[in-house]
Amino acid sequence: MLRLHDYWRSSAAYRVRIALNLKGVAYEAIRIDLLGGAQGQAANRSVNAQGLVPSLVLDDGTALTQSLAILGWLDDAYPEPLLWPRDPIAKARASARALVVVADVHPLNNLRVLGRLEAQFGADADAKKGWYRHWVELGLAALEEMADGAGPFLSGDAPDVSDVCLVPQLFNARRFDVDLTPYPKLVAADVAANALPAFQAAHPDRVRPD
Amino acid sequence: MLRLHDYWRSSAAYRVRIALNLKGVAYEAIRIDLLGGAQGQAANRSVNAQGLVPSLVLDDGTALTQSLAILGWLDDAYPEPLLWPRDPIAKARASARALVVVADVHPLNNLRVLGRLEAQFGADADAKKGWYRHWVELGLAALEEMADGAGPFLSGDAPDVSDVCLVPQLFNARRFDVDLTPYPKLVAADVAANALPAFQAAHPDRVRPD
Repeated sequence: MLRLHDYWRSSAAYRVRIALNLKGVAYEAIRIDLLGGAQGQAANRSVNAQGLVPSLVLDDGTALTQSLAILGWLDDAYPEPLLWPRDPIAKARASARALVVVADVHPLNNLRVLGRLEAQFGADADAKKGWYRHWVELGLAALEEMADGAGPFLSGDAPDVSDVCLVPQLFNARRFDVDLTPYPKLVAADVAANALPAFQAAHPDRVRPD
Repeated sequence: MLRLHDYWRSSAAYRVRIALNLKGVAYEAIRIDLLGGAQGQAANRSVNAQGLVPSLVLDDGTALTQSLAILGWLDDAYPEPLLWPRDPIAKARASARALVVVADVHPLNNLRVLGRLEAQFGADADAKKGWYRHWVELGLAALEEMADGAGPFLSGDAPDVSDVCLVPQLFNARRFDVDLTPYPKLVAADVAANALPAFQAAHPDRVRPD
């Protein structure tokens, strides 16, 4: 069975949980406690050179890292339903939307970066929140413009890879009290996604340890 | 003819120039002066909702954004040579290496982020350099472990998408005086890449305005 090195509140791990659920692929979750530093210990580093989550370990021991690379592999291995459309332009647009989150919002705002702001610049909670909001608001405003089709999802009537990345980002943004009313298309996609069992079962509150 | 919204020193634009050259695809460069703020003006925003570079505008006016999404489209439209291998595992590994740069190093260290550190935290040049080195050293150390095959490139004897992302990152790291001696595989890939005309012609010094 596939093993997912997972942390309940990691946005990147949450993306992979959603994708596994959408495709109906069973997996065993290996819990890596980020707050306790387990990501940097040997058991996790042996599958993830960056010392991060998520990693997906296949039956033969092959370990895949980087959430977007894992989603791509899942599309190859379990094509129903596809997260990326086959049409090259639509596929590139879906990738671009996903990368707004994966490359330009989330990396600036995750635990290790907020920790570094505190360590290097003495950033307090308010300063970290200001930093967080600056980047998330820039990214979400762009993403709102980049939605295709008539909704409710970002490319039409079914979730694609960008919806899979959006939902964890909005969950995260709410934790930082970001006002989402300027982004009605994103909120509509999030509502539609969270009505689906695959998204529900991946939600941090559902996988959080007791 | 394809039009590339380009800036000579942008790592992300440099990736796309390399890929276009590797595939022998002619393009017209539209220069967007990042230091002068042209990325945020209407002519660039009309093709790039994020107000960033690069964007690739196709003959019919379709605009593609996010460098890694553009590289994916180029593989679909001009498959020779492929930047991503066909084998799903090898493809996922190439994507993961590329994403170490695209998602976990470069977004933390680009012009807008260093500017924000100065604006929000009063970071001076030394503090920005310390921030830069912290993230680039973490990423490069992981990437060194993630190389596959016997070299000189990151997956063997030809450049893949991760080499296309590596070369601009190392160019950038040298500007910040990062010591690259701990990363012999990365340096070997960079040397091999920079011996190829496609990489040479994409180099910032070759496309820099007079």
